[in-house]
Amino acid sequence: MIIVGEKLNSTLKAVRPAMESRNEQEIIDLAKRQYEAGASYIDLNAGMFHDNEAEMMEWLVNTVQGAIDAPLTIDSPDPEVIRRGLKANKNPKPMINSITAETERFAKMAPLLTEFDASVIALCMDDSGMPETADERFKIAETLIENLTKLGVKLGDIYIDPLIRPVSTGSHYGIAALDTMANVKKKFPEVHIMCGLSNVSFGVPARKLINQAFLVSAMYAGMDGAILDPLDKTLMSLIYAGEAVLGIDKYCMNWLKKHREGAIEA
Amino acid sequence: MIIVGEKLNSTLKAVRPAMESRNEQEIIDLAKRQYEAGASYIDLNAGMFHDNEAEMMEWLVNTVQGAIDAPLTIDSPDPEVIRRGLKANKNPKPMINSITAETERFAKMAPLLTEFDASVIALCMDDSGMPETADERFKIAETLIENLTKLGVKLGDIYIDPLIRPVSTGSHYGIAALDTMANVKKKFPEVHIMCGLSNVSFGVPARKLINQAFLVSAMYAGMDGAILDPLDKTLMSLIYAGEAVLGIDKYCMNWLKKHREGAIEA
Repeated sequence: MIIVGEKLNSTLKAVRPAMESRNEQEIIDLAKRQYEAGASYIDLNAGMFHDNEAEMMEWLVNTVQGAIDAPLTIDSPDPEVIRRGLKANKNPKPMINSITAETERFAKMAPLLTEFDASVIALCMDDSGMPETADERFKIAETLIENLTKLGVKLGDIYIDPLIRPVSTGSHYGIAALDTMANVKKKFPEVHIMCGLSNVSFGVPARKLINQAFLVSAMYAGMDGAILDPLDKTLMSLIYAGEAVLGIDKYCMNWLKKHREGAIEA
Repeated sequence: MIIVGEKLNSTLKAVRPAMESRNEQEIIDLAKRQYEAGASYIDLNAGMFHDNEAEMMEWLVNTVQGAIDAPLTIDSPDPEVIRRGLKANKNPKPMINSITAETERFAKMAPLLTEFDASVIALCMDDSGMPETADERFKIAETLIENLTKLGVKLGDIYIDPLIRPVSTGSHYGIAALDTMANVKKKFPEVHIMCGLSNVSFGVPARKLINQAFLVSAMYAGMDGAILDPLDKTLMSLIYAGEAVLGIDKYCMNWLKKHREGAIEA
């Protein structure tokens, strides 16, 4: 599983003050801890800093890459912020979070992909807004994959996000996202699936369990990437358990290793 | 989800003494607690009593049905034990655990189904032994469904068990079971899927998490029945979470109810 560590996000109240006060040590600590806990990428989001988002993004990139060599996920809907982050980046191949099939956003964001040789999270959303069904999502995913590969983006650099909406607002939204994943993986086995987990449980109590149930279902549906908190030991343990159950972890070797290291926690 | 409570099983060391000493109250308590915790069926297994299994089964049936009106699952590979249990049973429609496609076992067990109007767990195993792949399992499932319906058994009374083997002994066994469920549900939507969960994690540490991961994957694959410990609150909570995520629990109404009742526990 490709884990994107979500903790360095300005929308999280616990971390915003460290960004405001440019507290390098706190940012570095949080990046390091996520990396050591198994994050493949460290997401950087400065979206709450409306007046200086680009500048804050540049500072985040410089701060984190000065301390660890993890690839970074540059997270913004604004192509100028993405450009600033990618320009500053010296770590291995970065990821853009995210592009959509909305005409204007696609046109502005897509050139950055080839200019900086980045991979990309492609969100199943277009000019008609948020999709309802799995079929609508799959059609948008197809369009995104076609248009991205036309520009020279490799299939393996595309991470489709099926756009998960809360099951509290529509009972079909969970299964719609899961079926989208399965259909994308069936038609485009090289393309990755990447989701933010927590949307699915918005508006219901005991969200952690809902997120856990969704995560493991999604792994069987073909999800091979997730944006989550890698410091959540139970969630990470369930990922390792899912990999054992699905035969990704051959003979449970990684499960046994993680168990020996004390990383497994119910 | 159709839950079969697995606690009244003579192979469990904690419960065997209560059977040996014919401790009615302990048996009744365990049956009641499972029923109240959400079990749809109470499994009764006297397999460790080699000399008097049939008699012990009859005592278990009488003891439990004297106290609660839950349907019972009569659990034995021996048709004579099954007959004795079914004959004693006065509770609503019982279930036989289990039939296989082995010629002799099928021939002896199948008549009991129609004689007692029971539903049945049908295990994907035939004269050639334990299947390896999902395809082998599916073919056995098809044979079982064809032969059972020929005898007049309704599709909705058949619970296919894909035969889960430990992932520690073969990395493909988890996915083989999951794909079997999905394939059976696709071709026979009225047929149920029923699994014993714990086999999948045999031989690895921290089995609970492996079982949890398998359970939720299996729900997306189409499993709508499970033999498990309904007193395990975390496992039951994950089932409710899975039902919310998969849109079985409309607008999370049951999730909210269970949460209010204090039944949700991570």
